[in-house]
Amino acid sequence: MKSRAAVAFKAGEPLQIVEIDVEDPKAGEVLVKILYTSVCHTDAYTLSGADPEGIFPAVLGHEGAGVVVAVGEGVTSVEPGDHVIPLYTPECGKCKFCLSGKTNLCGAIRETQGKGLMPDGTTRFSYNGEPIYHYMGTSTFSEYTVVSEISLVKVEDQEAPLDKVCLFGCGVTTGIGAVHNTAKVEEGAVTAVFGLGAIGLAVIQGLTQAKASRIIAIDMNEDKFELAKKMGATDFINPSKFDKPIQEVIVEMTDGGVDYSFECIGNVEVMRSALECCHKGWGQSIIIGVAAGGKEISTRPFQLVTGRVWKGSAFGGVKGRTELPGMIEDFMNGKIDLDSFITHHLDFKDINEAFDLLHKGESIRTVLTYEE
Amino acid sequence: MKSRAAVAFKAGEPLQIVEIDVEDPKAGEVLVKILYTSVCHTDAYTLSGADPEGIFPAVLGHEGAGVVVAVGEGVTSVEPGDHVIPLYTPECGKCKFCLSGKTNLCGAIRETQGKGLMPDGTTRFSYNGEPIYHYMGTSTFSEYTVVSEISLVKVEDQEAPLDKVCLFGCGVTTGIGAVHNTAKVEEGAVTAVFGLGAIGLAVIQGLTQAKASRIIAIDMNEDKFELAKKMGATDFINPSKFDKPIQEVIVEMTDGGVDYSFECIGNVEVMRSALECCHKGWGQSIIIGVAAGGKEISTRPFQLVTGRVWKGSAFGGVKGRTELPGMIEDFMNGKIDLDSFITHHLDFKDINEAFDLLHKGESIRTVLTYEE
Ligand SMILES: [Zn+2]
Ligand SMILES: [Zn+2]
Ligand SMILES: [Zn+2]
Ligand SMILES: [Zn+2]
Repeated sequence: MKSRAAVAFKAGEPLQIVEIDVEDPKAGEVLVKILYTSVCHTDAYTLSGADPEGIFPAVLGHEGAGVVVAVGEGVTSVEPGDHVIPLYTPECGKCKFCLSGKTNLCGAIRETQGKGLMPDGTTRFSYNGEPIYHYMGTSTFSEYTVVSEISLVKVEDQEAPLDKVCLFGCGVTTGIGAVHNTAKVEEGAVTAVFGLGAIGLAVIQGLTQAKASRIIAIDMNEDKFELAKKMGATDFINPSKFDKPIQEVIVEMTDGGVDYSFECIGNVEVMRSALECCHKGWGQSIIIGVAAGGKEISTRPFQLVTGRVWKGSAFGGVKGRTELPGMIEDFMNGKIDLDSFITHHLDFKDINEAFDLLHKGESIRTVLTYEE
Repeated sequence: MKSRAAVAFKAGEPLQIVEIDVEDPKAGEVLVKILYTSVCHTDAYTLSGADPEGIFPAVLGHEGAGVVVAVGEGVTSVEPGDHVIPLYTPECGKCKFCLSGKTNLCGAIRETQGKGLMPDGTTRFSYNGEPIYHYMGTSTFSEYTVVSEISLVKVEDQEAPLDKVCLFGCGVTTGIGAVHNTAKVEEGAVTAVFGLGAIGLAVIQGLTQAKASRIIAIDMNEDKFELAKKMGATDFINPSKFDKPIQEVIVEMTDGGVDYSFECIGNVEVMRSALECCHKGWGQSIIIGVAAGGKEISTRPFQLVTGRVWKGSAFGGVKGRTELPGMIEDFMNGKIDLDSFITHHLDFKDINEAFDLLHKGESIRTVLTYEE
């Protein structure tokens, strides 16, 4: 079938809206009509060409929601008409990782997903007869996309607004999940959040849920402080206003450091600050941001020997098919605020503008609508 | 009073056995007659001059055992005649750290201890009227030493041989504690131990206690493998025999990596290998070795984002006064093998030979006897 799509033909160039060909879903696959998608920094990173694993031409996009149109052979968990959110971290429930009880990083289709392919090693997208690659197993920048059954979570509540819950596809889940699943923050904890984009703001929501006693919000862009405050942040720091390392500032203002810190930017220097602002003896730092290829984190091992813990989190440690239904319920019950993330709405055709807004730091999330 | 002591007058020079003056213990302090001491890599590191925090002249030594001779004002937990082991990680039971329930790193006397001083900011040692500094709050290289009450654990069992349990003062406790307290290794775990000195061997004993299913012992000196095997190691690797990074070798032989790894050397490159040989999704690496001043650890943040955890441990996370009595009991009941660590016995006067044996990799531990 034909589908409108925003194709990344080449690194560093704007997306081009074209009509691509989408094949039928094969066994274990599902054809989804995407209704809404947003744009995340990871899409921008790959499009920029800085991602050494970026593959072109490709249909990017990994934060979306839509409706099942058709299912391939053997698919039993969803059927046409179901509301769904694609998951870039699938959950097969059967692999070593899924069965470990220790991680959400399902290994079932990892290799092909990393190569922009469906599990059988081919693509379902083409343009003028030439294959177009998939992206993160989701490719929500095509109105019709094909994803693995294990890469979909069903939205049971028909009332759940897809133009909002689409945000659970990445940033919001990542931030809230990192607080509860990765850090396991307890009531009264003193915390710091580096970077107040969608993920950082979601971390703040998670920390508020966890009843952290102090939530220090850190960003060079002070415009972000208002939203951070609305979500529960208690202290605000602009590192550019200090002439000493920000970790020292935070250690001083917290009598020794924070119990938990979160790096939500993807900057390896900030990752170091986030670790080193942790309290000796028990402070944990969680890396959430994705660093540019080849970049390395460093610190003196003494930081760890004296009790700090350095961890990371992908998709917030959340098993999408198991845990997202609960998070959607939390949203429907007012326990998660999605509306504040959505600073802009645009038509799908204006997707490059959504990238611009993100780059300029003007948007948190722009939700793009496919319907005309 | 007068005391025989091996004084480190200058960095990089052998210790000199001289007669120093030792003052009476002040309030909260205890005068201990050391009967046995051993030599640890940390003493050698400080003596070498590589330790940027090394202070001279000093009485080094932090792995020993002895008898209380006199107590200062207010000391209630020990009395003359008690068998004791000095602790370089004290336990006051009252500070923020001790009360946290999350760490063994008592902060009560940290600042003065780090400066080679007693808590009142002075020293109890002098030579020809010039002050000699303390070391790690223990200074077991003096026959008579003064330590804080909170830096002593009482050996209740009068039968416990002090020439063996003195090893609980550092390496053995550090290794066994790191397994149980820091890593919390569970039955069936796949593990790797980098460096087969006293700490690495103690880690292996801890892993055997924890019923790890696989204990991979790694060292360039294959002479160490026999003792590692005796203590429970199941696999043996000499990294110099492979022409690829040792983490790749370990990942291949363990179907994805180990559940827990321990760095027991103090080499920042090995620390990286130890982290990167961990299994994606849940592998934890524990840094135990002390790196040279200024050295830094590095890795790609992706290693952490994909679920590995980087931790460290000092004194095995063990609260000495609370936990050492149980470990001494374990030794008395045959659950900890100390005898195998003691490869050499020497008279105290031959202490420089004990350093030589350690440098050459010929000894695990040399126990020095003060008695003539
Ligand atoms: Zn994203
Ligand atoms: Zn799986
Ligand atoms: Zn030691
Ligand atoms: Zn304390």
